[in-house]
Amino acid sequence: MLRKINVGKRILSANDEFALENSRLLADHKLLCFNMISSPGSGKTTILARTITELKASLRIGVIEGDIKTDLDSQRIRRTNAPAVQIETGGACHLSAAQVAGALANLPIAELDLVFIENVGNLVCPSAFQLGENAKVVVLSTAEGDDKPAKYPGSFANAKALIVNKIDLLDIPGLLDFNIERVRTDARNLNKDIRIFPLSAKTGSGFAAWCDWLGESVLRGR
Amino acid sequence: MLRKINVGKRILSANDEFALENSRLLADHKLLCFNMISSPGSGKTTILARTITELKASLRIGVIEGDIKTDLDSQRIRRTNAPAVQIETGGACHLSAAQVAGALANLPIAELDLVFIENVGNLVCPSAFQLGENAKVVVLSTAEGDDKPAKYPGSFANAKALIVNKIDLLDIPGLLDFNIERVRTDARNLNKDIRIFPLSAKTGSGFAAWCDWLGESVLRGR
Repeated sequence: MLRKINVGKRILSANDEFALENSRLLADHKLLCFNMISSPGSGKTTILARTITELKASLRIGVIEGDIKTDLDSQRIRRTNAPAVQIETGGACHLSAAQVAGALANLPIAELDLVFIENVGNLVCPSAFQLGENAKVVVLSTAEGDDKPAKYPGSFANAKALIVNKIDLLDIPGLLDFNIERVRTDARNLNKDIRIFPLSAKTGSGFAAWCDWLGESVLRGR
Repeated sequence: MLRKINVGKRILSANDEFALENSRLLADHKLLCFNMISSPGSGKTTILARTITELKASLRIGVIEGDIKTDLDSQRIRRTNAPAVQIETGGACHLSAAQVAGALANLPIAELDLVFIENVGNLVCPSAFQLGENAKVVVLSTAEGDDKPAKYPGSFANAKALIVNKIDLLDIPGLLDFNIERVRTDARNLNKDIRIFPLSAKTGSGFAAWCDWLGESVLRGR
């Protein structure tokens, strides 16, 4: 007896199967999800803590924290009173959709408007793995240099938004050699529709545009 | 007929085979090789350019530059008049020993004392791949934060030396919340013999100890 195999169906990787399940779960709860990607130390956790505080009157935000080791970041998020679940990858250089599925099960998703996934600090590998998110947000800090979109194109090509963090450092004469126009040009050459938010998670400068965009994104998603 | 298989021999991965060949080639030429690992933007290329310039009277240094895309870094090194070969990985998150073998064939190794391999900017993946180097050097910049050895232990556990770069930023009151003693403690907990060099590749502060250590390392290797 012959078995009929439907070759028209795309065969998904195990990761993509979990990502699809995550995206269905998120859609069922009308919950927007952003996957944040950057180098170590660009300021992802500080951005998230400030975002949660600035938006606490209007948006209920939860966080999934990814790190190779330690729960330092989820501790920082919980100090803002937002729910946070830590994933320790134990060596792996990116989060997997299965890990995110487990974390979503431990967040009060019925009560949230927006979930941020803070990926492992790595400007290369995480962008290649779907987690079920609605969009990726890449973070670049001014201290890292303005050549990063050209040198690490994958993360910038696949993101819906780019945060240029630590712009307060640009106010100190002679401190950094960083041309934000070069970043804009190189990022838009890779990704013409990318939204770019220069800001400082330390001083709050530039945060209004970022927070407005998040609020609009949640509204559009409903 | 039975074929005799020597199960006592360790089976090397393809990468480790190339790494072993590289290490033999380097030993034949009494050439010391350091593999530099860090996040994007920690200042590896600036450190190398200054090191080459400060040591040009005593050490002949060549560089293998690894990037996902662009030859910006090898152009910067060549401006110091040192030989530099660029590897563009085209997406891969770390250098392989086979890529380094190809690059070594394009460097004037008979005329050199020391070769630096500047790995792809990534604090996670490169530390897991041997390239045939004598030792790894990990770079952390103060702008990345003092929690990085605890959060990314692999790269710090496997390195012979740690450069803490951009210490000039610590002189600006209130700019960074970075405790270098926390870095020392956490790095030594992972790796009790790691050498730690706080320096600024921009101002040259702290460079003497780093350059002395390189000179001694080359002498010891002969």
